[in-house]
Amino acid sequence: MNCRNNGPDDVTLKIHYCGICHSDLHSVKNEWGNAIYPMVPGHEIVGIVTEVGQNVTKFKVGDKVGVGCMVGSCRSCGSCEQNLENYCPKMILTYGSLNTDGTKTYGGYSDTIVVDERYVVLYPENLPMDKGAPLLCAGITVYSPMKQFGLDEPGKHLGVVGLGGLGHVAVKFGKAFGVKVTVISSSPKKEKEAIEKLGADAFLVSSDPKQMQAAMGSMDGIINTVSADHALTPLIFLLKAHGKMIMVGAPEKPLALPVFPLIMGGKILAGSCIGGMKETQEMIDFAGKHNITAEIELIGADYVNTAMERLARGDVRYRFVIDVANTLKSA
Amino acid sequence: MNCRNNGPDDVTLKIHYCGICHSDLHSVKNEWGNAIYPMVPGHEIVGIVTEVGQNVTKFKVGDKVGVGCMVGSCRSCGSCEQNLENYCPKMILTYGSLNTDGTKTYGGYSDTIVVDERYVVLYPENLPMDKGAPLLCAGITVYSPMKQFGLDEPGKHLGVVGLGGLGHVAVKFGKAFGVKVTVISSSPKKEKEAIEKLGADAFLVSSDPKQMQAAMGSMDGIINTVSADHALTPLIFLLKAHGKMIMVGAPEKPLALPVFPLIMGGKILAGSCIGGMKETQEMIDFAGKHNITAEIELIGADYVNTAMERLARGDVRYRFVIDVANTLKSA
Repeated sequence: MNCRNNGPDDVTLKIHYCGICHSDLHSVKNEWGNAIYPMVPGHEIVGIVTEVGQNVTKFKVGDKVGVGCMVGSCRSCGSCEQNLENYCPKMILTYGSLNTDGTKTYGGYSDTIVVDERYVVLYPENLPMDKGAPLLCAGITVYSPMKQFGLDEPGKHLGVVGLGGLGHVAVKFGKAFGVKVTVISSSPKKEKEAIEKLGADAFLVSSDPKQMQAAMGSMDGIINTVSADHALTPLIFLLKAHGKMIMVGAPEKPLALPVFPLIMGGKILAGSCIGGMKETQEMIDFAGKHNITAEIELIGADYVNTAMERLARGDVRYRFVIDVANTLKSA
Repeated sequence: MNCRNNGPDDVTLKIHYCGICHSDLHSVKNEWGNAIYPMVPGHEIVGIVTEVGQNVTKFKVGDKVGVGCMVGSCRSCGSCEQNLENYCPKMILTYGSLNTDGTKTYGGYSDTIVVDERYVVLYPENLPMDKGAPLLCAGITVYSPMKQFGLDEPGKHLGVVGLGGLGHVAVKFGKAFGVKVTVISSSPKKEKEAIEKLGADAFLVSSDPKQMQAAMGSMDGIINTVSADHALTPLIFLLKAHGKMIMVGAPEKPLALPVFPLIMGGKILAGSCIGGMKETQEMIDFAGKHNITAEIELIGADYVNTAMERLARGDVRYRFVIDVANTLKSA
């Protein structure tokens, strides 16, 4: 237990499940150069409330709740005022960040966490706590841009590039919104699963020029989840005029951006980073209503290092979730 | 005279002035690889109507009119139906393109042009015909994205990257909209003119890290007119969260796009290509109301080759305009 005492605005959670996000791997290895050690990763947290502060109004002891990527923000900037705390320049990350008092934040690979109620969401009663945990990061990361850019309107055609932790959830949200979903992947072997299991309407192999050409100009938007280097031009060509490609995967090195095809079609390329707390609550409520969960492999706490190795080589369908409550041994 | 006979929907213009756009230079040299010869360049055309077809309702003989970059489109696609003919996949360019009957289109370095009335705008009585000619391409190219992306709202802070033919007009439109305009340029020597002559509020030297850093996160939007290779990262950092950079210059080779800063700020990078005919009419009406014209160097027809050479080395402030009516000798 690495957390502060429960303050007047705080909620204490007994953590039951925590997803392993690819950014946990980047962080523990300090691949983004901003790691703070000691580190307890984990920002896809589902648990049950064990204590609430005197000012807390949204939660009571016994509630199922979720915590995602952030546990604090300034609350007064333009972004915070618009419920977009995710873009607050003073956003405090769930782990590897500093609280305003200078203490470190520790994440969900742990038995307990104390979080200000603003950054906690009520978890739907009907959703399984393990399978829904990844929605707190992966879910909101794809849900937010689909809403913000109008890609949730029935009749729209959405492309999802990359079928991993983010992509497979994007397909599920897309189908629940009632849009046509096409998966674009470099792995032909993923087609069967994309269509039969996840419900995608179509599948394009990105390395097949014929398939890609046949789909040119057909998509209203693309959620691009790929964090490896890849060619943007063929993806931009998939968009209709005024189409939008939203980047949610962050390749380490800059990508080559062809400007001409952007200009000729009046196309948009945007970045999007998780979502605000209001939107995160909406996302998880929507997931509850439509029974959207992630496809997961549930693991014990003693398997985390192995899971990280498998994650590094892409060997997971689609998300590891740690069964914290049943397997974490107290130190 | 290279044009067709005036048809029932057509307007014939005696061309008085035609601007020299940088794309004319690319086209005559076939630098985009799609040139059709013989070629008569020119798509910043102002003239007077000499003949109208029987179906023409918007114009009469004697009207001052303008023709920009396009003279045709399919009229039935989604873009055309939204008055965004500029994104119609079958848009017919004013020159270097093919009409639906297979004949070539010839541009404004000529005495006469015949254009379907849909692609002609009424030119404001009060605007000088020579100085306003560049608005038909340069003007609409910067006006459209400012309107489409809400950068025309008073109180907004607009960055203009590059102070050439497009950039100097963007500054004028920005000031007429009532927004704060900061010019970002690699040439410190342009500061005085940007502020004193064009009315910009501030000037940043893009190669000065201190100046650039001090302005970080301050801009709602940027119109990026640069068509040479350049670094996007420092420009993306100038944007506020949710800020938008619109590319209207088309570098030949792909630019290096850092994805992380786009994601962290939920920022948008978009391309924009001229504007639709409805918007072009609105633009020129707005220019008339606010007395917006380009800064030009008026030249005779026999100076065009020299002007092209000077344009290639950036030696013009800010646009050459050909005095067609007074200097073009009939063949």
